[in-house]
Amino acid sequence: MKIAIIGGVAGGASAAARARRLSEEAEIVMFERGPDPSFANCGLPYYVGGEIAERGNLLVAPKQMLIDRHRLDVRTRQSVEAIDRQRKRLTVKDLVEGTTYEESYDKLILAPGASPLRPPIPGIDLPGIYTLRDLRDADRLHEVVQGARRAVIVGAGFIGLEMAENLVRRGIETTVVELIDQVLPPWDREMTTPIAEHLIDKGVRLVLSNSAEEFAPILPEGVTVRLKSGEELDADFVVLSVGVRPENSLATAAGLEVGPRGGIRVNEHMQTSDPDIYAVGDAVEVRDFVTGDPTQIPLAGPANRQGRIAADHIFGRPSSYRGTQGTAVVGVFDMTAAMTGLSEKALRRAGRSYEKIYLHPTQHAGYYPGAERMSLKLLFDPEDGRVLGAQAVGHAGVDKRIDVLAMAIQAGMTVFDLEEVELAYAPQFGAAKDPINMAGFIAAGVVRGDCAVVQADELPDAIDRDAAVLLDVREAEELANGQIPGAVNVPLDRLRQALGTFDRNRPFIAYCQLGQRGYLATRILTQAGFDAANLSGGYLTYCQSRGRTLAG
Amino acid sequence: MKIAIIGGVAGGASAAARARRLSEEAEIVMFERGPDPSFANCGLPYYVGGEIAERGNLLVAPKQMLIDRHRLDVRTRQSVEAIDRQRKRLTVKDLVEGTTYEESYDKLILAPGASPLRPPIPGIDLPGIYTLRDLRDADRLHEVVQGARRAVIVGAGFIGLEMAENLVRRGIETTVVELIDQVLPPWDREMTTPIAEHLIDKGVRLVLSNSAEEFAPILPEGVTVRLKSGEELDADFVVLSVGVRPENSLATAAGLEVGPRGGIRVNEHMQTSDPDIYAVGDAVEVRDFVTGDPTQIPLAGPANRQGRIAADHIFGRPSSYRGTQGTAVVGVFDMTAAMTGLSEKALRRAGRSYEKIYLHPTQHAGYYPGAERMSLKLLFDPEDGRVLGAQAVGHAGVDKRIDVLAMAIQAGMTVFDLEEVELAYAPQFGAAKDPINMAGFIAAGVVRGDCAVVQADELPDAIDRDAAVLLDVREAEELANGQIPGAVNVPLDRLRQALGTFDRNRPFIAYCQLGQRGYLATRILTQAGFDAANLSGGYLTYCQSRGRTLAG
Repeated sequence: MKIAIIGGVAGGASAAARARRLSEEAEIVMFERGPDPSFANCGLPYYVGGEIAERGNLLVAPKQMLIDRHRLDVRTRQSVEAIDRQRKRLTVKDLVEGTTYEESYDKLILAPGASPLRPPIPGIDLPGIYTLRDLRDADRLHEVVQGARRAVIVGAGFIGLEMAENLVRRGIETTVVELIDQVLPPWDREMTTPIAEHLIDKGVRLVLSNSAEEFAPILPEGVTVRLKSGEELDADFVVLSVGVRPENSLATAAGLEVGPRGGIRVNEHMQTSDPDIYAVGDAVEVRDFVTGDPTQIPLAGPANRQGRIAADHIFGRPSSYRGTQGTAVVGVFDMTAAMTGLSEKALRRAGRSYEKIYLHPTQHAGYYPGAERMSLKLLFDPEDGRVLGAQAVGHAGVDKRIDVLAMAIQAGMTVFDLEEVELAYAPQFGAAKDPINMAGFIAAGVVRGDCAVVQADELPDAIDRDAAVLLDVREAEELANGQIPGAVNVPLDRLRQALGTFDRNRPFIAYCQLGQRGYLATRILTQAGFDAANLSGGYLTYCQSRGRTLAG
Repeated sequence: MKIAIIGGVAGGASAAARARRLSEEAEIVMFERGPDPSFANCGLPYYVGGEIAERGNLLVAPKQMLIDRHRLDVRTRQSVEAIDRQRKRLTVKDLVEGTTYEESYDKLILAPGASPLRPPIPGIDLPGIYTLRDLRDADRLHEVVQGARRAVIVGAGFIGLEMAENLVRRGIETTVVELIDQVLPPWDREMTTPIAEHLIDKGVRLVLSNSAEEFAPILPEGVTVRLKSGEELDADFVVLSVGVRPENSLATAAGLEVGPRGGIRVNEHMQTSDPDIYAVGDAVEVRDFVTGDPTQIPLAGPANRQGRIAADHIFGRPSSYRGTQGTAVVGVFDMTAAMTGLSEKALRRAGRSYEKIYLHPTQHAGYYPGAERMSLKLLFDPEDGRVLGAQAVGHAGVDKRIDVLAMAIQAGMTVFDLEEVELAYAPQFGAAKDPINMAGFIAAGVVRGDCAVVQADELPDAIDRDAAVLLDVREAEELANGQIPGAVNVPLDRLRQALGTFDRNRPFIAYCQLGQRGYLATRILTQAGFDAANLSGGYLTYCQSRGRTLAG
């Protein structure tokens, strides 16, 4: 059995190592265009910023180790130029020698990854415009940041924000330009508000709902970024991080099927339309775990698992890929944003019915020093309560809650299950009612009809006084930080006495700071026969939905 | 509806608050023997140690809040002395006035908790011997630690170790005496080795496999603890933390059924043998989530959920308790130990067949600064791979992995599921192959028969040279830290060349430092036709199983 693998990073390296573990006999040839296979892709921004000081640390599985330990035939600086499916032969170009040769295969695994998008903007090919995909890119940026003063990052996704943090770490004045009206496009906008404010706090200039229309050179060195708004930003260099495109040129040239977004089509065993050719990683189209629809989600974890599955299948094992649920986390300075499953906007796009709730728990018991609040959003099926997605933003403990919810989605659990799950509690780590349980309680209350919710984004900016009564149940001293226009303040602990004075013909929307007292108020009102609903996530979510945090 | 609740801490307080949310009409009377309802039980050691500086922070739901917000009739310093089930009346003693009165109920919820065990050791009632259950206990200890120099803690469970940390924080020379041969008795012994060494590093004296046989007074103040070994320990005070006993006196006096360990018997709705009387929290017997067997596991999370379920059921809701899986975490100085599901010893006691694997992953990508190794043990069904239990010990990220595995157990997931789960990865938070995936890979390899494992505790101290070949596949420079007696060193990357020299009639046990290279070696040997197995967890687990870490 001769296996050829094109691409030696996450998916390709995993496939190669797994194939060797399954067969000592197999001939395994790995082609990697760059000089280094299996480098730590996700560490590159931190190498540029200096947080990862040793370049060598990025070489997760150095070439010699792949040769010695896994007996791989590793061919770096070799580029596969064409696949002849009939003859099962590859045309390979040696990038050092400039020569070309043929190599045969029994099974072929494509793991070419995805390449950074370079939109056709005038000046896009200027020397001061960088992308960050591989070690050579990182080396170049590592050099450029030394002594640079000002940078513009185009695109506020994972890499854009990680680069922003790392450029600030280098003392560089950094502006981030983003096309849409939020940072971290995969998240829902209101959940990114704390991250946006945190970036600003750390000195990053954020330019949202704007885009680069032209790049012009500054002599002797630098780039002027002309924005759609007309503003011009001068920078020593520009980092372009506006997304990636699956590398499908080899696959399409070979006549393999490709999806509408360019991802190579594969079945659950990672086989392309040619059963002797597999494809894995950022280049493939995957099924969304929740909807089952085809999608394109470039993530390192799935790439690794897909590589393993392809190797398994080559050796007759029934492994199959379950789909990608989009579990992701990003550190942005001192904050963390994480998500799993579908976002609200993805649910809307998919036309799937859903309900949502917000909460703002601390990561561990409030009575223990160091408790910090996070914001957590849970998306679920309004009928059966199945968990569809979750997002969290905050500090410590955010990654844990999203991983726990990722498990809930994997297992097809419902919000009723979240009420009952038993998580670890000690004062430093959680709460007797963990944020996950709390999310379950709140969401289950909605599905069961115990507590109707109103969403901040449904709330008009000016409340129609004849329609709903907007009831602020916080204590009087809390109002100084702001209030929703048109609200009437009746502190929760005085609500029962006030009930007699309320107009029974009008619906009530109760709210507090975080959502908890609003819930209690809603229960009191509902039981007293009022038409009442709680503003999910309280005033804090209201503010976040309007693009500001309480600090902001 | 008149609901009486005996006990105002975790389970009782949750039941009361939930009952009020479900019914504004209900009369809810809460009896609490102490002066404060709903205090933060799990925070007490940290108040004694000064980490929680403000006593007020321990009052999670102050009495007045329960009255104002939940309209509870809170009766602190009142002790229920008897239950008349026929007449549905309680005899209540006012501990302040010394008077006694009757109170009726429609539904009664028992939430009396558990009391610290005080074994009948001579001198046990000396004034210098403390237990830690409630705020008054904490107040006393808070006073005692001021100026104290030496303390003895009897019992190395959660509270014992948390107290040890907090006494050391107060500058007190602390000795911990434990009956069995390990700290943290619910964990398996080998997993507690790093914690034991860490305690010693922090200056705690550990006396294992020993016990207090007598307490004698030192005048004017202090206690001499006479150990079974004959040693005498002088201390300014003693903290007794040798376990708890369910408070069942009221229940048994009222003729309610009680289990063999003293826990009040309840059904899945938390009803006792009298359907109008519910019981929740540390006083009840629960079902083990994994085995379904009755057991006794005092934990705050389950207590809270049980209180909620009892209230639900009183108001006709079908909520039911799923059993306790024993998810627990404890911080010990800078380390964390966590577990969920059954321990190996519990599986043995239950006579359940199981398999186990060990691994020692870092909490996040090794290439990112701050990576720290944890030890993780996974217990699973050898046939179908169902996850039965897990334990972890280390630093950051330990609580996360155990919570994720707690979800796996809740959902009835298998080790094959763990291979596929999609968790959040960025360099600061995890790995493309998260420790959970790695655990799944290793365990699934065992279930599938890809890689046989040998356990450190099966390895005799002296290897019979005629039987197995013990093959150390580490690099030569790693051997300086120690080796298993009788092992032969052939570094992994030279193994293939050496195969021809090996005796095909003898079985091979491969091992490395952490288990990963041993696995690769086993695959190479197995494929070459040898009878081979990997030492699970490698040399590190071997050391831990012999009561030492690599540092020790």
